[in-house]
Order: sequence, then C-alpha cells, then structure tokens
Amino acid sequence: MTEASSAPPTIGVFDSGFGGLTVLAALIPKLPRARFAFIGDTARLPYGSKSRRTIARYAVESAQFLVREQGAEFLVIACNTASALALDAIQDAVSVPVLGVIEPGATAARAASKSGDVLVIATDATVQSHAYKAACAAQNLRALEKACPLLVPLVEEGWTNHHVTQEIIRIYLDELTNDAAADGLKPDSLVLGCTHYPLLRPLIEQAVPAGMRVIDSAESTAEAAARLFNGRAKSHGPIDENGSTEIHCFATDSVEKFEILGSRFLSRPVGNVQLVDLGG
Amino acid sequence: MTEASSAPPTIGVFDSGFGGLTVLAALIPKLPRARFAFIGDTARLPYGSKSRRTIARYAVESAQFLVREQGAEFLVIACNTASALALDAIQDAVSVPVLGVIEPGATAARAASKSGDVLVIATDATVQSHAYKAACAAQNLRALEKACPLLVPLVEEGWTNHHVTQEIIRIYLDELTNDAAADGLKPDSLVLGCTHYPLLRPLIEQAVPAGMRVIDSAESTAEAAARLFNGRAKSHGPIDENGSTEIHCFATDSVEKFEILGSRFLSRPVGNVQLVDLGG
Repeated sequence: MTEASSAPPTIGVFDSGFGGLTVLAALIPKLPRARFAFIGDTARLPYGSKSRRTIARYAVESAQFLVREQGAEFLVIACNTASALALDAIQDAVSVPVLGVIEPGATAARAASKSGDVLVIATDATVQSHAYKAACAAQNLRALEKACPLLVPLVEEGWTNHHVTQEIIRIYLDELTNDAAADGLKPDSLVLGCTHYPLLRPLIEQAVPAGMRVIDSAESTAEAAARLFNGRAKSHGPIDENGSTEIHCFATDSVEKFEILGSRFLSRPVGNVQLVDLGG
Repeated sequence: MTEASSAPPTIGVFDSGFGGLTVLAALIPKLPRARFAFIGDTARLPYGSKSRRTIARYAVESAQFLVREQGAEFLVIACNTASALALDAIQDAVSVPVLGVIEPGATAARAASKSGDVLVIATDATVQSHAYKAACAAQNLRALEKACPLLVPLVEEGWTNHHVTQEIIRIYLDELTNDAAADGLKPDSLVLGCTHYPLLRPLIEQAVPAGMRVIDSAESTAEAAARLFNGRAKSHGPIDENGSTEIHCFATDSVEKFEILGSRFLSRPVGNVQLVDLGG
C-alpha cells in the first residue's frame, strides 16, 4: 500500500465506538501529514460490559481490517477496554507495531502524582482486568480502580452538563475516595480510563477533592504514538511537506449516527463514513 | 426433534440480553409442560441503540439457532427492539410461527385505556421504528412514544431502587406528559416498551400522574403465546401430564454473568447456561 516514497504512512486507529476519536483528535496535530484510518465497531459496542474472550475476538477483527484492508503500518488501540483485555491478542494477530492507551495513561499518572497513589475510573471490563493497576505498579504507583458503568450511557445521551450526571459522578467518586482512605492511600491524581470520560471532564473536575489532578490518556497516547511513529516514518523517505491530514472513518453500524456522534468527540465534522461488515 | 408423541414441544424465546427473561417468567406458569430454549445475544447487546439492518441480522441468527439447533416449533421474540425492527425479517427466515411483544403490548393498552390515548417508553431504536404507534393505531389508540436510553444501563447497574433512577424517570416522564399535553392527548396508560423496564415498575408507578395505568407487555405476550401454542400443541398427541417445565438457556457472551443477572429477571436461579457462538 506504500506505492510511492512520498505517500504518507497510514496509522490505523481503533475503538469500539466513538470515544477513540478523542485520541484521534490528539494525534492529528502531532502527526499532521499522516493518513489516518479510524474504525469504530459500533455494531457491537459497548465492549466494557463484555468478556475478555468476546472483546479479544471483536478487537482482532477490527485490527485486521485496518492492517489488511487499509494498509495500516501502525495501530493505536484508542479504547481502554480493548487495550486492557485484547492488546496481546491484537499483537499476536497483526505484524505491525500496536500501541494501547493504558501504558501512556500510567506514564501520565506517574508524571502527575507526587504521593505515588492514583485513582482510576473505567468500564467494568477494564477494571476487572486490573490492567491499570498493573501498568501503574510497573511505574511504582499504587492505583485503586473503580467501574463507572453509567458514565458512557450518560455521554451518549448527551447529558454531559446535567445535574443528574453531576450527582452520579459525585456518588462514584465518593465511593472511590472513601475506599482509597480505607486502604490507606493518599491519591492526588485521577486517571480517566475510558475515552468517553474526557467529555465529562468539567463535571469531574468539580467533583474531585481540591488539588487532585485529572488525567486524560488521549494526550499522552498521542505523544507516545508520535515518538514511535516518527521513528518509523524516517524509513519511508521524504514525505510530501505540503500534504495535509487525511482521515478515513469506518463503522460497523449506522454511518449517519457515527457522523453525528463522532463529530462531538472529534470536535470537527466527521464526513464520508463508510460502512464495514466484520462478519458479526 | 419431535421423536415421541409425548415429548413436550419446544418454545424458543429470544432476547438481546436478559430482559426477555421477564417474558419467559410469564410464559412458564401458562405453559407448564413446555420445553423452553432461551437465547440471550449478550455478546452484541444492547440492540436498542443500533440500526434496523444490524438488529435484523443479529435477531435472525438467534432465531435460526433456536429453530435449527434447538428444534423450536414456535418463537417468542421477547425483545421490544427486535420485535419492532426485525419481526418481518425473522418471519421470512424461519418456517415456524413467530410472536413479538409489540402487538400484545398494544392489545393490553387497548384493554386498559378509556381515553384511547396512551404513552409508550422504549429504547431509541424501538421509538424510531414507531412500531408501537402503528400497533396502537391498528387498535384505534393514539400513542406518543419516548426513548429512555438511560433506563437499561440503570437496571444493569442494579440501581432499581435508587434516588438517581427516580429522578431520571421523573425527567423522562415529565417531558413525555408535557409533550402529550402539547399534542392535545389525554393519556391514561403507560406501556413499558422494553423488557428491562418491569424491574423499575415500583419507581415508575410512583412517577406517573395519579390514575395512570402502567402496562407490562410480558403478561399479555404470555397470554397470546399460550393461546397460539395450545392450539398447535393439540396436533402433538398427548403430552406427558407428569412432565415439568424444562428450561435451557444459551448466551453469546459470559455464561457466569448471564447466570447472575438472569436470575434477577427470571426471579429464580438460572443455571447451566451454555455458550453459543453465532459467528459475530
């Protein structure tokens, strides 16, 4: 798929739905001349309530689509649940480098935390995998994780600035900070372990204890991707300096819904979404 | 699959997840000597936020499993979304009688309503299909439908008796009754157009205007199924009068989760759930 030395390399970005577009939005300014192929597996979302076996099967099919059909030379798994439960399976299934969002999230938490204790909110499946706990432990951080299954539906309902959402966030965070105190932790940072949660950031900032840092892994994932990718891109020969970002979006369910909801996450219009059948 | 004249006929019951078990719970006392095969397509739930094309494809695969693999001689589509968007596709795909929940729901509303105006709450996909509006119109009822996408996640979070759930129900019902008044309707009945909602019935009863009847289609679906099925069963010859209900449950994702959540909907333990791969 790399016909000319000046063709921009393709970066495949995958999410179960729309949330990963917040990661794509962070990638674009860092890699302005890349070609991005984004797939949202909207026919089978959400992944966060499902089993490891099912998540891995679905995620591998999307990853293979990006590599085989779209010629992706690098994959960003812009979905916390798939990163937590299926990164190994994806790496086994494709021959290109694969970056998830968990490790960059832990790296950002390490940079932010002085106490060494952090909180993580995420989907059920991500929390049950304890992927954040492990990634944080590898950086000498103690992490306490909590599943917040109502936050994704609240974002999808568009209630991102609603008093009910504020109350639900308060309930979840009160439980989490009480559990942390009971465990003797002194957390000073909160990791948003789901790509939907950045849309709730203003409400979350209001609900956390004074002085607590709120960390979104989208930014640190984009930085890690840019480092890895810029290293690889050198082997491509000169890239057309006048080229602009190319974005191709694919969805496994309604492209109309993807275009409407997607633009909310990408903060720019998402047009020309193509429907893909992954066989599910 | 009907080896002996005394073998109980199999009734296939299908839902996208667990909610349809409330319909199965209503069917059991009406057909105590039947063999039930229930499948929950938990790997691909929820259907309520997805497109007609995707819902129909998924629902047909589950229906074919029940008929081809389980020998079902009669199907109950115990999912409002699949009944609203895929009943025709299922009827085209299998050769056995198929009953959905929408028409029995409208029949129950007709029996309950004096004013002839009813309200319906359901998933996004069910509301967008206007299947309830059409089924009610066929019975000379005017229906106003409203999507309540947060109610399913609240039930699955177990917040069936929570002040936040009460507030969300109040918000949805206030919007719906205001819209009804603006349209000049005088509704006296509210149809629960999703099989998750009966678990919220106590909170919904508290939130509706005084005198409004709350209608659950599970009961009227079970009555319609018993009428149809008892007619067919006569051709089977004598059924073993000493036989008891046989229930076989299948799920496309985690059987452990199905056993835990399912027992909440069936109001009895759900054991020996078998994992099925429908290729998605």
